[in-house]
Parts: sequence; structure tokens; C-alpha cells
Amino acid sequence: MIRFEEELTLLQNHLLEMAGRVKSSIHKSMRCLIERDRSLILEVLADEEHINELEIRIDSLATRLVALNQPVAVDMRLIIAALKINTDLERMGDLAVSIVQRASELLERPPLEQMVPVAEEATLVEAMVEDSIAAFIDRDAQLAHQVLLADDRVDLLRNEIYESLATRMEADGHAVRRALPLLVIARNLERIADHATNVAEDVIFLVRGVDVRHRREQP
Amino acid sequence: MIRFEEELTLLQNHLLEMAGRVKSSIHKSMRCLIERDRSLILEVLADEEHINELEIRIDSLATRLVALNQPVAVDMRLIIAALKINTDLERMGDLAVSIVQRASELLERPPLEQMVPVAEEATLVEAMVEDSIAAFIDRDAQLAHQVLLADDRVDLLRNEIYESLATRMEADGHAVRRALPLLVIARNLERIADHATNVAEDVIFLVRGVDVRHRREQP
Repeated sequence: MIRFEEELTLLQNHLLEMAGRVKSSIHKSMRCLIERDRSLILEVLADEEHINELEIRIDSLATRLVALNQPVAVDMRLIIAALKINTDLERMGDLAVSIVQRASELLERPPLEQMVPVAEEATLVEAMVEDSIAAFIDRDAQLAHQVLLADDRVDLLRNEIYESLATRMEADGHAVRRALPLLVIARNLERIADHATNVAEDVIFLVRGVDVRHRREQP
Repeated sequence: MIRFEEELTLLQNHLLEMAGRVKSSIHKSMRCLIERDRSLILEVLADEEHINELEIRIDSLATRLVALNQPVAVDMRLIIAALKINTDLERMGDLAVSIVQRASELLERPPLEQMVPVAEEATLVEAMVEDSIAAFIDRDAQLAHQVLLADDRVDLLRNEIYESLATRMEADGHAVRRALPLLVIARNLERIADHATNVAEDVIFLVRGVDVRHRREQP
């Protein structure tokens, strides 16, 4: 039987592989939109299948680890964090799929000028995903706190995008079919940011044993 | 020390209390919109705080249960299901808050005729939440499968609402500020349905030991 520590390392390696896939899938979904490259749609769909398989593999490895061993509190905390991060990563993969689906509608029409702030939002969000995973690998609670702060900037930017697109649609009915999918993409990016925030909160819990959910006002 | 079985029962009772709160909060958020009753906004916000507290209490009870005992496989599966259902219920509570926020914008303007299908969507979604929890209580995999099927109907209805609201906005720029929040609410309801689907999948896993995620086409 493989030693418990080795299986714990395996669990984290699977999670890293999954995180890498998810990051790349989000990036491709935005390139599909910005560079108007349809070939990336199929790639993101293929990524999602792979991500789903990884999710199931990680879940069952974590469950087996707990069932066959008697993890002490600190290992148990790691396994529970891994289970939660796994779920968040898989949802990010789903959101990348939703982005290419909306992008595929948008590629049939000329782009709106609001593409610029949406691309800016994507850059912020991709950095949050990157940092939340790095914080997990390095057990870096300080970096995790930065992710929580970045989430507020994403929310602000997304509100600006909403306002700008709503005004555009009010002025011109012909813009509706170009504005609505872009609005959904801005919202999907915000939701990816929320999942990165969840990961960051799990890291803080893991490192400090402190549950920071629902009281971000007093970090 | 309280016996393990009693703590397991306590865990499930907390989860039921949480589910009751969440269901009631979703219902109030839609009554706020449909009956144009502003007083319900504060109630839903208060519910959310209570739900957040319950989430943290359930998470730490589950973690303690695993750390202090050595649950056998079947109990471990229950505890992991409880942790996942806990997260899904908390997210539903957040979505009820998002619904009253959008409702509060809508109450300043006369209602659109698309309120009718959105109310219909809410009825479907509330039944899914109810059934997914009942399936958990009764370990009823068949009922859980019905929840998975209902999710497809919600998706169809939500697409119809999207199409109808987009057409309305194209025809009349003045409708944009009434249509967009309603579109967000329709989307929030769909996301609540997705969380109910997650709960149903957890129930099937719990009862049958089968992971049905990502292969709903072959149930």
C-alpha cells in the first residue's frame, strides 16, 4: 500500500493539473472572443470533458484517502480544502464553456466598443485564478488576501460594463443582440472571480485555521 | 462524549434547518418581485445572515465528526454529501439576495408582461429545491432523478424568456431598464435550479454509490 503522504501529494498534483487545465481553458475562451478565432471553441469543449474527468478522479481519491486512513486534523483540513477547490475549479471550466458559447454568437456580428473593458476584466480575473492557485500551492495566506481584494475591483468593473451596455441598448435596438451576450460574458468572468475568491478563502482556512467566509469586512 | 450516531443526526437536522431557511428565502424573494412588496427585501437579507451562520456551523460540525471519529465508508459518504449540499444551499441563499436586489430596481417601474413566464420558472425551481431536499431526507434516488429531468425544463423556459426579453428590448429602448433586471432574475432562478441539481446528484451518489455527474445523458 502506498503511504498516506504520497497519496496526499498525488491529490495535490491532480489538483494542480486540473487548475492548469482550467486556467488555460479560461484564457482560450477569451482569446476566442477577442481574436475572433472559432477554432478555440472545440478546444474549450474538449478541455471541459477532461476537467470533468479530473474532478471525479480527485473526489474519489480524496474520499478514499479519508475512508482508508485516519487523517489527523491538519491533513483532514487539507483534504476538505482539496474537495472544495476541486468543485470551484470544475465550475470555472463550465463558465469557460459558457463564454465560448456566447462568443460564438458574437463572432457573427461586428464587435462592440465595450469589448475593451471586458478584456480588461478578463485580465484581472485570470490573475485572480492564477494567484488563488499559487496561494494554495505555497500556503500563502497573504496572497490569498490579495485575491479577496481583487474581487472588489472586478465587481466595480463589471458594474461599469453593465451600465455602459445598458445605455448602448437603450440608444440602439440593433445593438441588443451584440450587447446581451457580452453582458453574459462579463457576468461569467465575475463568477469565475467569485470561485477564485472561494479558493482563496479555503487557503486562508487551511493556513490559519480561520474561516473568513461571510466576514470579509474584518479580514 | 455524545455518540457518533447522534452527531450524525444533528448534522442532518442542521442541514434541514438550513434547507428550510433557504427555501423560504427564495420564495420571499419572488413574492417581493411579484407582489411588489418591498418589506420582503430586509427579510431576505436577514435570512442570508442566518444561512451564512448555519453554513459555517455545519461545515465545522462535519469536519469535527470526521476528525474525532473514524467514519466507515457509508458514513463518510454521508458527511461528504452533507458538506457539498451545505455549499449548494448557501449559494442558493446568495441568489435569493441577488433576486431581491434586482426586484428592488424593478419595483420603481411598471412590470413587463414577461413577469408571467419568470413566475412560472420560479414555481418549477422552487419545486426542484423542495424535491432535492426531500430526496436527501428520504434517500430517494428516484425523486432525485426527477429533479435532473426538471432542470432541462427550466433551461428551456429560461431560453424562451431570454428570447422574449431580447426581442422586447430591440423593439423599445425604454424597456431595457425593466428587461435587464428581469433577465438577471431568470438567470438566477436557473442557477438555483443548477444547485438543486447538484444536491440531487449528491443524493444519487449517496444512495447508489454512483457518480452521475457529467453523464446525465446515460442515467
